[in-house]
Parts: sequence; C-alpha cells; structure tokens
Amino acid sequence: MAKSRDATQSNMDVDYVLVYRFATTDKPKATSRFEQLLHKLASVGLATEVRNGENHSLLVFARVASEQHMFGEIYRSRVRDWIHGVRPAEPAREVRASLEQEPLHEAERLRIIYQLITNPESEGGAGITPKKGEWECVESIFALHDHVYNKEWIKKWSTQWLLSPEDLDEIRNRMGEKIAYYFAFTQSYFTFLLFPAGLGVLCWAFLGYFSSIYAIGLSLWCVVFTEWWKHQEHDLALRWGVNGVRHIETKRHEFKASMSASDPVTGEQLRIFPATERLQRQLMQIPFGLAAITALGSLIAICFAIEVFISEVYDGPFKSMLVFLPTVILSTGTPLLSGVMTKAATRLTDWENYETESQYERAMTMKIFILNFITSYLSVFLTAFVYVPFGSLIVPYLDVFSLTVKPFAENEQQITSPKDPGQFTINPSRLRKQMIYFTVTAQIVNLGMEVIMPYLKRQGFIKIKEMQSKRTAKQTSGNTQPPPSLEDPPEEKEFLARVRSEAELAIYDVYSDLREMVTQYGYLALFSVIWPLVPVSFLINNWVELRADALKICVEMQRPTPWRADTIGPWLDALTFITWLGSITMSALVYLFSNDGVGPDGQPSDIKGWGVLLSIFFSEHLYLLTRWAVGLAISKIDSPGRQKERRDRFAVRKQLFETSLDQTKRIPPMSEKAEEITRSALEDEERQSTLRSASPQERFWQRQRNWRESALIGKTFIEKAVPDVEESAKSKKEL
Amino acid sequence: MAKSRDATQSNMDVDYVLVYRFATTDKPKATSRFEQLLHKLASVGLATEVRNGENHSLLVFARVASEQHMFGEIYRSRVRDWIHGVRPAEPAREVRASLEQEPLHEAERLRIIYQLITNPESEGGAGITPKKGEWECVESIFALHDHVYNKEWIKKWSTQWLLSPEDLDEIRNRMGEKIAYYFAFTQSYFTFLLFPAGLGVLCWAFLGYFSSIYAIGLSLWCVVFTEWWKHQEHDLALRWGVNGVRHIETKRHEFKASMSASDPVTGEQLRIFPATERLQRQLMQIPFGLAAITALGSLIAICFAIEVFISEVYDGPFKSMLVFLPTVILSTGTPLLSGVMTKAATRLTDWENYETESQYERAMTMKIFILNFITSYLSVFLTAFVYVPFGSLIVPYLDVFSLTVKPFAENEQQITSPKDPGQFTINPSRLRKQMIYFTVTAQIVNLGMEVIMPYLKRQGFIKIKEMQSKRTAKQTSGNTQPPPSLEDPPEEKEFLARVRSEAELAIYDVYSDLREMVTQYGYLALFSVIWPLVPVSFLINNWVELRADALKICVEMQRPTPWRADTIGPWLDALTFITWLGSITMSALVYLFSNDGVGPDGQPSDIKGWGVLLSIFFSEHLYLLTRWAVGLAISKIDSPGRQKERRDRFAVRKQLFETSLDQTKRIPPMSEKAEEITRSALEDEERQSTLRSASPQERFWQRQRNWRESALIGKTFIEKAVPDVEESAKSKKEL
Repeated sequence: MAKSRDATQSNMDVDYVLVYRFATTDKPKATSRFEQLLHKLASVGLATEVRNGENHSLLVFARVASEQHMFGEIYRSRVRDWIHGVRPAEPAREVRASLEQEPLHEAERLRIIYQLITNPESEGGAGITPKKGEWECVESIFALHDHVYNKEWIKKWSTQWLLSPEDLDEIRNRMGEKIAYYFAFTQSYFTFLLFPAGLGVLCWAFLGYFSSIYAIGLSLWCVVFTEWWKHQEHDLALRWGVNGVRHIETKRHEFKASMSASDPVTGEQLRIFPATERLQRQLMQIPFGLAAITALGSLIAICFAIEVFISEVYDGPFKSMLVFLPTVILSTGTPLLSGVMTKAATRLTDWENYETESQYERAMTMKIFILNFITSYLSVFLTAFVYVPFGSLIVPYLDVFSLTVKPFAENEQQITSPKDPGQFTINPSRLRKQMIYFTVTAQIVNLGMEVIMPYLKRQGFIKIKEMQSKRTAKQTSGNTQPPPSLEDPPEEKEFLARVRSEAELAIYDVYSDLREMVTQYGYLALFSVIWPLVPVSFLINNWVELRADALKICVEMQRPTPWRADTIGPWLDALTFITWLGSITMSALVYLFSNDGVGPDGQPSDIKGWGVLLSIFFSEHLYLLTRWAVGLAISKIDSPGRQKERRDRFAVRKQLFETSLDQTKRIPPMSEKAEEITRSALEDEERQSTLRSASPQERFWQRQRNWRESALIGKTFIEKAVPDVEESAKSKKEL
Repeated sequence: MAKSRDATQSNMDVDYVLVYRFATTDKPKATSRFEQLLHKLASVGLATEVRNGENHSLLVFARVASEQHMFGEIYRSRVRDWIHGVRPAEPAREVRASLEQEPLHEAERLRIIYQLITNPESEGGAGITPKKGEWECVESIFALHDHVYNKEWIKKWSTQWLLSPEDLDEIRNRMGEKIAYYFAFTQSYFTFLLFPAGLGVLCWAFLGYFSSIYAIGLSLWCVVFTEWWKHQEHDLALRWGVNGVRHIETKRHEFKASMSASDPVTGEQLRIFPATERLQRQLMQIPFGLAAITALGSLIAICFAIEVFISEVYDGPFKSMLVFLPTVILSTGTPLLSGVMTKAATRLTDWENYETESQYERAMTMKIFILNFITSYLSVFLTAFVYVPFGSLIVPYLDVFSLTVKPFAENEQQITSPKDPGQFTINPSRLRKQMIYFTVTAQIVNLGMEVIMPYLKRQGFIKIKEMQSKRTAKQTSGNTQPPPSLEDPPEEKEFLARVRSEAELAIYDVYSDLREMVTQYGYLALFSVIWPLVPVSFLINNWVELRADALKICVEMQRPTPWRADTIGPWLDALTFITWLGSITMSALVYLFSNDGVGPDGQPSDIKGWGVLLSIFFSEHLYLLTRWAVGLAISKIDSPGRQKERRDRFAVRKQLFETSLDQTKRIPPMSEKAEEITRSALEDEERQSTLRSASPQERFWQRQRNWRESALIGKTFIEKAVPDVEESAKSKKEL
C-alpha cells in the first residue's frame, strides 16, 4: 500500500466505506440504528469516522484499529483452509511467522475485513448485512479504488499484447480470485482463438463456407479448449491456494430453515431445509423452462416469420419501412420479456431456498443460461434448421400476414402469394448475414453499450442533478438542503467528493461478463462453420474486451469485494454443454449445406433424413470419444502448481508417518536376531510342552528346531529325490 | 481361529504353505536356494517346518514366530492407510490399543503375512516372488483351507434364500475384499434382477416380444442398477475400511524401468518408464483390436453364413448332419482363436510395462472385454442387424457355398438358389432361438463346466496317477521313488495328505467369475427385449451360481490369498459401456421388430433408415439424461458408512483445529474491550501526531475519537437532513 503517495490520490487508509441511507426511516430509529452500527463495527476492532453523504445518507469510513485482532482472524482463516484441505501445508504455528512466510495480499486483507463486517455474530463478525433485515439502511459496503494503481493497470494493459500469468496474479492479489478467474478465462480463450482464426482464414480463402475440414478442426479445438481449461482452472486454484474453497462456504443469510435436525456427523442441532422439499420446488423449473421457451421462442419465431414474409414475399407499399418492423419488435420485446423472465427466475431461485451462495449461483446460472440460449441462438437455429430445409413448405403459409397488410396493398399483385412451393426460392445468404450480424455487429454494439453508454448515462445524471439543484436553489433559496460537501473540511474536500461519486457507482457482477464470453463461445462452437471468419472477429473483439472490462471495473463500478473461487463455476458446465451440442449442429450444418449434398444455392430436395441423422450420430460419438481421449491426455500433464501441492502433502504425510511410527521402531529389527528369537521362542515352547501333554500342533512345530534344521532335512529330501531323476533319465535312455 | 477343534481337521496353526519344486534344478543349486529360502523366511519372523511333497517338491510350512513383529507390521500398515486417507480415523497411538480397538481379522492377518513373504526386502519383506527370477523354484504360496468353516459356509448358504450384509462381511473377513466384492456384486445383481424378471413375465404374457414398455423399463433398470452399484461399492469400501487402497499400491515385480529420474515431489531417485513410451506401446492396442475383430469376427460371420445357408437354402444330402457343421467349427475354433488372442493380449499387456498391479489389470481387462464382447454378442448382432434387415439381399450371395456342396448334391434342385430376393424368406424365430440358447442353454452348460468338469477331471487325474505308480512299481520294484507319504509321521499323515492335495489345486481368479457376470449382464442389457424371459432365467441361474462359486472356491481351488480392493475395478467401466450400448440396441431392436414397424413375420420393406436412427438418437440422449438424473439422485443418498466416515474425519479435523488455534486464543476477545483498545490506540496515534506534523491521513482519522463521537456526529447530520424531508413533503403537499 502506497502510504507515501500524493495526498490528493490517497485513500486516507480507509479500508471500507459504508453508505448509511436514512431517507425512508424515521429519525429516532435512524439514529439508534446508526449508533448500533458504529458500536458493532467497533466491537470487531474497526475504527470509524463519519462524514456527510449525498441525499440523506451518511458515509461511515472504517479501518482496522487493532492489527493484532485482524491477524488473528487471518490466521484462523488460514488454519481453517488447511484443515479442509484447501492449503496443502500447515501454516506456521506462530501467527507472525505465518504472516512472514506468506505475506498478506490486499485481496485477502479486504476479504477478511469484509467478512469481519458481514459475518454473523456467532462466527465472530459484526453481522451487518447490507440492504437486508434490520440493516436495510446500510445501502452498500465497498472499498475505495486505488486510483494510482488503476491508472498504471490500464496503461500497462493497453500497451501490452498478451497478458502474462503475473498480470493475472496481480489481479488476483487486488480483486480476488473470482474476478481473476474471469480474466484468466478470457485470456486463455483469446490465446486459444489464434488457432481457429488462422484455420478460419485459410478455409474461407480456399475452401469456402461449410467446409467439413473447418468443422472438424474447430470441433476438435473446442474439445481441447474446454478440457484444457478444466486443467488450467485447477492449476490456477493450486497456484492461488484456493483449491476446494467451495466446500467451506458459510450459509446464505437468506436461507430459511424449515425444520431442525441433529447433524449425524457433528451431533450439533442444525436448522435445515429438507432436500425432498427443495426438489419439489425445483420441479417448478420445468414449467418455468417451458414458459421461457414458449414466450421467448414464439416472439422470436413470429418476428422471424414476419421478416421472411416482408423481405421475401411482400412487395407492397412501405416495404422499405416495414422491413424494420421485426427488428423493432424484437429489440423492444426481447429485453422486456427476458427482463420479466429473469425476475421470475430470481424469485424461483430465491424460493428454492439454497443453503450456500454457490448452490444459489449454480441454480440461477442454469436458468439464465436457458434464457440466454433462446435469445441468442434460436433465430440462427430457425434459419438453419427450419427456414432453409423446410422454407419452401412453410413460407406459403405465411399468407396469414397478407391479410393484415392487405389494406396497405394497392393491388393484389403486390402480395406475391406463392401457393406453388416451387415458385418461392430460399434466400441462401440469409444465414450468413445473420451470422455476421451476431458475431460482428452485435459484438461491437455490445462493447459500446458496455463502456460508452454508462459513461454517457452518468454524465447525463450529473448534468440533471446540477440543473435540479440550481432550479431548487432558485425556487426556494432558504429552505433547501445545503449540498453535503458544504461541511467538509477543506483538505478532505477532494477526497470526499471522490468517495461520494464512487458511492453512486454500480456493483460489478463478474458473472454477467462471463455470460457474455460463454455466449460468444456458443456462436463459435455451434455455428461458425457458416462463416469461417467468426473466430477472427472474436479474436479482435476479445483483445479489446479484456481491456474494456478492466476499464469498466476501474471507472464505472465500485471497487469489487474480493471473493475467492476455485472455478468459473456453473459456466464450465455451460461450456461443456455447448461443445457437445456443437458436435451435433456442426455436422448437421455441414451435411445440409455443403456442396455435395444440396449446394448453397437452394432447393434441399436431395437432403436425406437418415443422412443428417447418421452424420449427427457419427459426429457426436466421435466427439464423446475425443473428449474422453483428450481429457485423459490432458489429465496426465503435470504442472509446477500440482507438483508443489503434492510436495506439500508429501511433507505433511511424512511427518505424520514418522511421529506415528515412533513407537514401532522400538521393536528390534528382525534381520539377524530373528533367528535367535525364533530359536528361543521354540525352546520356550518346547519347555512348556514338557510340562503338559503336547497337542498335535505343538508336536508338528517341534520336529525341526530352527530354519537350519529345516534346511538340512530339506537337503536330505532333495538328495533322495534328485539322483532318482538322473537314474530314471538314464533308464529312459537305455530303453 | 478354532484352536480347540478336532485334530484331524486342524491346520496345525500353519499360516502359509510354500511348495518348493526342484525337479528341473541341479542338486547343489536346489539345496543352496532352499537354504536361502528358509533363511529369508526366518529373517522376517516366520518359523518353518519342512515335509516331503509330491513329485520332487518340498512343502515348507510357515507360521508367525514372533507375534510382536507381526503386530508391528500390521500397525505400520494401518498407519500407512490412515496417512493416505484410506482410514478416516488415526489408529490408537499404542500398538496393543490399536489391535484391541480393531481386532485383526483373518484376511488382514493372512494378507500381512503374505506381504511379509513376498514384499521386496527394501520394504521389509522376504522378497520371495513365486515362479519369478531367482525364486522360480517356489511354485506357489498358499494358505490352507479352513475345512470346518467351509462346511458351515456351504451349508448355510445352500439353505438361505438371500445373503445378508453380514454374510458378505464374513467373506471379507475370510477371503479379503477383492473376493467379497465379487460376491457383493453378484448378490446385488441377483436382488436387482427381481424387478426385470417380474416385468419380463408380465410383458411376455401380455405384450409379447419386442415390447417397448419392456425396453424402457429394462433400460431404466440398467441405469439405476449401474449407478446404484457405484454408490454401493463406495459404501462397502467405507464399511470395510478400504476406500482408496488403489492409491497405495506397491510396484509390480515385473515392472522394468527404462530410465531414472528424480521425483519432483519427494526428491528421491526413481526408476521410471516414461508415459510417452508406454503410449507408443499402447497404440499397438489398435492393430490388436482390429486383428481380434477381424479374426474372431470373420470366424463367427462365416459360421453364421454357413449355418444360414445350410438350414435355409441348402436342401441336399447329409443336411441333418451338415447343420451341426457350423456349431462344430465354432466350438472348436472359438476357444482356439480366443486362446491365441488372450495369449497375445497378455504379452501385449506385459510389454506395455505397467507399474502397478491395478493398472496392469485394467489394461488386461479391457483387452479381454473386447475379445469377450466379440465372441459373446457378435452372432446376435449379426442376426438382429444384418440377417433380418438385409437377409433377403445377402442370402442370395451365399451361393458361393453351393459350389462347395455341389459334389454332394444329387441334383441341381436341391440347392435352391433364390436369385430373386422375394423368394427367400427370413426365419423370424432364429433370433429368439439364438437368445434362448445363449441365456438358458449356455448358462447351464457353463455352470456344469465350472463345477462338475473340474471335479471329474481331478478324479480322472487321481486314477491315472494311481495306475501309473502301480505300473512303475511293477516294472522296477527296487528303483522307484517311494511315495512322499512314506516318511510322514503317522499322526500327521492325514494332514499332510490334505496339504498335498491342496497343493495340486488351481489358483482362483476372481476376475474370470466377474467377467462371466458382466457378460451375462450384457445379454440382459443389450438384447433381452428379444425374449423377455431372459431375466427369469438369469435370476434362477445366479442363485445357483453364487452357491456354486462358493463351493468351487472351497473344493476346487487353493485358498485364495486375501487381497484388498475398493471397487470391482475395470469391470465397472464395462458395465457402464454395456448399459450405454444397450440404450442404442434396445431402441433399434424395438423399432426394427415391433409389430408397428415390420411385424416379426418377415419382410422389412417398411423399415426406414431415418426411423431407426431417430429412435436411437432419442433413446441414447434419454439414456444420458436419465443417467445424469439417477446418478445425481443416488449421490444424495446417505448411508451409515458415509456418515461414520464423515464423523471420523470431522473428529480429526476438530482436534487439529483446536491444537492449531491454541495460540490465537491468547489474543483477548474483542467484544467489549474493543472500544478501549480502539480508544487507546487512537490516543496513542494522537500523541504521536503531536510529535511530528500530522499527515492528512492522521488528521482524517483524528476528527472523531471513538465510535460514540462518530455516532453523535452522525446524529447531527441526520437531524439536519430529516426535518428537511418532512418539510419538503409538506411543501409538496402545499403545492
């Protein structure tokens, strides 16, 4: 932490800022709650300062008052990690030594302090849960941006072609593993894209569209990429010392137990929610999924049909304007509908009542993935697998629309109604155009929306606020609340202004960025054979995306709380699913559209149902086989992280083994003394046997005194037997 | 151990018998080796007695001389288990206490002693490797049957309908986990068979053959069974305390290292065989597999074609005899060919040079599974998917055979050569007949071969031997070697005779029995829709099989060395593979043969390629989905074994956590004292700040002394802001 920096850039050693908003609470309650808040913070060893905030809010600055206390907390967290197997090596038994061995990085420090503030009191925290229950006045808890570092970061990344592992470590040290995983994934994906980009350019130049070579190459690449990422993910988890953190999660605050039972393992009384009841609730996902598919699906299908009708059947007036109609319907309807659906999904997931954050996230991600899948890919599916093969059968039925446009038509001729299927010809470039739209235009628009829109929006808000305050100042000059900055000490003015503006920023959600990447990967894995330049577009886009996301976090978002993670979580399953599905769609596309079968010029009369199915069957099983083989091969790859982990575990084992076996070493080794022991033991037995009548067992074991005697007797047996062999051999010869 | 039993039944406290055969070795070498053998045995604390054996062999009886030494060895083994996570709880620190806590069962004792004898000297054993290297004279090492127990066992099982878990525990205590797993698997399979047997009878009575209800029910059952067995297997591993033993294997004696490298984990110098080189050798499996398929496949296909030709085309002389020709060719050719192939597989696996026994077994099992798959299922595959659908196209080409039979034919008429495809009609009952043969006749024959044949064979050998010795005695009365029993002490006569006969017995291979079960499961999962009574036949067969195998082990095999295992190993993969394939074959069979499509009465002219493929596509994906869901559901099932394991692990963790955190407890808790600390810390800081000019940070944090002051200031802010809200609300109302 740069303590020596320019004072205007300094964060005043603040660890966390809490925004306390009391606009909707009555005064006495607001005051007592606030007192309680500060008391709670002090009770976990945090010093506080209060300043005035924007719009009926207070800013509470918190920092660690007793480093000793926090160190204890860190040490406890490290020991817990070790016990649960997250850390392979035991932390040094002495707190200071442990911290010297492994210095605290900023993300760990901030995470521990955040947990100090938010963990329930039973677990040693202050129990402050922002926006929930009794703490609904606490609007947000956030750390302050380190502007000096942020500037350096953006500058460094924008002048650098590739990100090194050290750059990722740096992010992890600053933002925590969860965000670092996003950047690591995008970076791997970016690097991996080089291969399909090259392949795509070559295929585009020499083989044309729907090349089976491209499809095979790309599918193979997809398998290698997903399997390799699984390997890489585990590697990073080991490198960052977070492997297995998903198993030591605390309960969600929102979890509601319905009954109590005693834990069969620990014997504690636990408040639980029975899995069977949750399963019943989870079954609601089926109607939810069907509703989502029906609603979003029919919206997209209808717009698709209208579009086809207008652009290819209809020829009446306003055509040039009407072609935009489906786009307008889609671009207003889809966000609306998927907004409603997302809300429904959130409520459903809340109702499913998960115990831990990661279970909740997994369930939520699955639902979001379904919605996203429909909105992103359905229209391409419709074009490829409905419009092109069955277009000439379906399009004539689009006549329904001609009833609605009839009033506009000047004469019947304008609505060419191709009753004869042969008359209508399919527009073969539609699929490609759609693909280019989704993989180039939409990506650029999206990037713009992500970076530029929020900036403009914020500037707009500031302008509006300024105008509002000017107006109110004009209207009622005496009665107006003074701006909060009025009472700031002059030397803190700049700092507080910065904090106030950071308090207004949005909270960064890393999963939405991950979703974007996975969606993009979907276009590549499912459809890119349509237009082999897709990976080139993505390659360029992702280079910018990585930097734009860094910029977004620095400028448009509050500094994210550093959470730990050991995986990109449920999105990994989405990747695997997409890759699998890709093996089906790619082969079907190649069969349907490659020159041998139909030719891209139209009539699919030669398409054979069994041909499509057979190519899908082979492709899918080839995919499964390849995945197995690639997975096996990659699992054999060793890495420094894995080696270190095994080394640590080995050291622990060795030590345990040695302490445990201390006492067995006291038994004399059996090498040469064994004989004496055997002899004496036997002699003892013999003596005993003279005392009482010997049992058959005893007599059996007393015939030979020791191994030398046994060997002698064995020798006589051999002597007797072997000459016999020689003689019988001789006698045989004589015969 | 029944020490008090009838002397004639007693095993004389013998732990192991070693058979030392010196027939092919010259005398001095035989003698010195023998001496060395006894010396080595004595050096690991075993007492020995020597007696004469059959045909130039010596019987070495070994028993533990120093219990103390063996206890040490057992304790070491238990600690090693604990360290590697096989045992969840640490064994008591004192050897005696540990043995009292968990008494030694016979299998553990025998395993430890066997390892004492065979482990390399570097690992504390005697290094005696039967039939290998310098110990090739040591023909076998085996424990003696406990005849009293065996009699009870067979008696109990043959009067009992179902085997209880305690019966399985008993087997595990006697024979070790590896064999117990076979019985546990067969028992589970037997119990599970009740459902398909019931379903099969119902479907057979009411729905006829090729019922889709039966197919769906059975496929579902297959999925549940395999997934449940995985769960059960893990449960048993926990119950028997062997979970994870596959990870602590020692190296195979036969392993040949090609280079040495230092272990990145332990730093030791290791002799290794590089994985890349092994991979190159493993690639030879591809030509091996192809050769196996070609050789066995063409044998079976040719016999199949001959059979079809003779029984359905040919009508010449000797037909009644010629129909047996393919059976004769098959039943002589298949064992010969698969014998050659098995030998090739063994040599290939040896050459692949695996480091551990389980890797070796896995590789070997895979090859055996391929061979077995072809010999068992190929002919049914041919009937179902070649003969029936394409029969009318292919059969006319069987004319080739008519050239060979022409000499026998009396006139041209007898060889009905149906050039016209319509003329030839398919024999629809062929498939069912084949199925009945494989699932009833072959099973009974097999059972007979397994139990009765070896008995007859052994009786025959004894007779031959008696005759031989009589003859030699007549021929050269002086020169003959006396029978080995001549020198036996009279009281040991009976015992030694028993040992000599046990020494002649075969070694039990549990994997061949497992293979038999998995093959049987294959008929059920792949084809049983052809004849729904298959599970009934298997149900009856397996009840007998379980008892017959017990009898086989007791009577016809040497007492097996008790090995540990935590799974049925590679056969589990075979089960999963078969179940998967079953989802394909079942749906195809139902589509091809059910009454709707073709009718079992012949002409498959209505069969559509895309129909078959589509039903396969749906069925397979339904299978994958079901497997996922069933696997998920079963993984949620808890069991006493799992709970105990977690309880043990929790106890260990708790203890570790408490010792590790001892020192952090010395930090005073922060509840109420925190305030004082905060205050004093701040006062300290203040004092320091007066000494030197305060930095902005210091001044920032000194504005409010403690949380009470912050709370007061917050209150004033709230006071100022809240009335404003009320007033503005008022003013709004006024407007």
